[in-house]
Amino acid sequence: MANVAIVGSGFIGRAWAISFARAGHDVRMWDQSPAATGGARDYIAGVLGDLVANNLLRGQTVDTVLDRIAVVADLAEALADAAHAQENTTENLDVKREVFTLIDTLAAPETIIASSTSAILPSKFTDRLRGRHRCLVVHPINPPYLIPAAEVVPAPWTSSETVKKTRAFLIDAGHAPLVMKRELDGFIMNRLQGALLEEAFRLVADGYASVEDVDIGLRDGLALRWSFMGPFETIDLNAPGGVRDYVERYQSIYSNIFPQMLRRVDWAGEVMATVEADRRKRLPQEDLGERQVWRDRRLMALAAHKRESDQEFGR
Amino acid sequence: MANVAIVGSGFIGRAWAISFARAGHDVRMWDQSPAATGGARDYIAGVLGDLVANNLLRGQTVDTVLDRIAVVADLAEALADAAHAQENTTENLDVKREVFTLIDTLAAPETIIASSTSAILPSKFTDRLRGRHRCLVVHPINPPYLIPAAEVVPAPWTSSETVKKTRAFLIDAGHAPLVMKRELDGFIMNRLQGALLEEAFRLVADGYASVEDVDIGLRDGLALRWSFMGPFETIDLNAPGGVRDYVERYQSIYSNIFPQMLRRVDWAGEVMATVEADRRKRLPQEDLGERQVWRDRRLMALAAHKRESDQEFGR
Repeated sequence: MANVAIVGSGFIGRAWAISFARAGHDVRMWDQSPAATGGARDYIAGVLGDLVANNLLRGQTVDTVLDRIAVVADLAEALADAAHAQENTTENLDVKREVFTLIDTLAAPETIIASSTSAILPSKFTDRLRGRHRCLVVHPINPPYLIPAAEVVPAPWTSSETVKKTRAFLIDAGHAPLVMKRELDGFIMNRLQGALLEEAFRLVADGYASVEDVDIGLRDGLALRWSFMGPFETIDLNAPGGVRDYVERYQSIYSNIFPQMLRRVDWAGEVMATVEADRRKRLPQEDLGERQVWRDRRLMALAAHKRESDQEFGR
Repeated sequence: MANVAIVGSGFIGRAWAISFARAGHDVRMWDQSPAATGGARDYIAGVLGDLVANNLLRGQTVDTVLDRIAVVADLAEALADAAHAQENTTENLDVKREVFTLIDTLAAPETIIASSTSAILPSKFTDRLRGRHRCLVVHPINPPYLIPAAEVVPAPWTSSETVKKTRAFLIDAGHAPLVMKRELDGFIMNRLQGALLEEAFRLVADGYASVEDVDIGLRDGLALRWSFMGPFETIDLNAPGGVRDYVERYQSIYSNIFPQMLRRVDWAGEVMATVEADRRKRLPQEDLGERQVWRDRRLMALAAHKRESDQEFGR
């Protein structure tokens, strides 16, 4: 097991700490603002309690995992002998540049330095670093202790050794890394999500479907198969001869509608009144927090179900 | 409980028969080709056996449900006193026109006539019918006895009474109808799936991601939340102030990448070699059938899990 540094102790930093400590690593968390780390361990203890109740701590107790997480007052201390450092500061290029310069200066030469950024390309804030070959993005879906996917995005100068080690480190911690061959705006998951959302907003804006209809179409339809197979395997199994057969049979349905997807709807424009009214009718603003708790409970139950199904039927 | 006619006894017709019979309806199935109906009841009995083993028959026995399904030799007999007729013939406009003319002539005036077509707009084959006000599309995702979503698509002349009754009929049978306000190519689900697939093929064609990376991004990432919330509720819960707040914070990520989505990749072109090689490496051609059985078992387990989670945590 290794030492892991968590830089920035907001929700993403805390979530990574949980995931890495659960995997057996010694986690040291540092934040520029001492106030931010104040409630961190209490918060983490609460999440660990939920996880153990859903049998999602690999058979360990809350205390065993919690004891592996320390909040430290000094960045150098957090980085000491760290195999992996995970940065989780504000989504701001200047901040990322500054923090990465600091980490690269303080960390041992073999420490891998990963950013949780969802929107900034790694080349933008690692270009001038002496250790830029060991820098990259590892972008989670929140919360990473419940959603295994994590995007590994190299800058042009990130070494293949860095990518390889990061991938192995994530798999060992129970994650499912998607390794990009080179960086691209939005990475993989936000591009796929964005493509689907563009069409969803268009359907609502043009008056063909309600917000709820779109959600039904995913939660009671498309996303069921995708949640254990993904979209390529889904179409591979949806024609007798596999994916090529599927494309030969059905591509024309999709190519015919493609020209209708060239027009973008401003999500914050007129359509937002419809979207917000529909959502607030189903879920009043004051219940958003409670519903987030519900979401995490359902995610935990789904994670437990998937693990059981993997064991019973195979992946 | 009602009489339901199934016209066409291929996989979709059989699947609807299972779903409607499970809901308590008397189902009469007819096919133009007597050979096609030959193995239908044996096939259905096999599926019912799997369903009962997963506690997905509403507490009924296989025989109780099977006894409600009759294969009849005469279309008029199938349609006698039917509240709902579900057409499942070949995806060919001439065939649909012909079959709908026949059904409209033979069925009682109050019978609703629904087509399972995934690609033909209802206006194209119901325009000249005397009873065109009672015709519409009810498009399932296969198999409908495991995937609740079904698209209800009216033609311009479909009566609101027909839409309303169809919606109620589907909900009663355990389905989750998406009701389109007016017809549109690809309906809702194939448009959403298509939008995502376009980006998926682009990412692979441009060498940013592998087929497997895209599948991981959905099955271990995006599709987990979507499988019980849908995409709009997901973003509604992903910013402190709800969906408007989410869009204000993050729309620029998506609008920045939209211009890169205006170029279509031919799915059957050069990229197909990559896609097919990746899929066949993971799943040899001869194992496709076995993997489809695996998919249906996983879908059954997922359906059972979702029902339990709905009960435990609420929808």
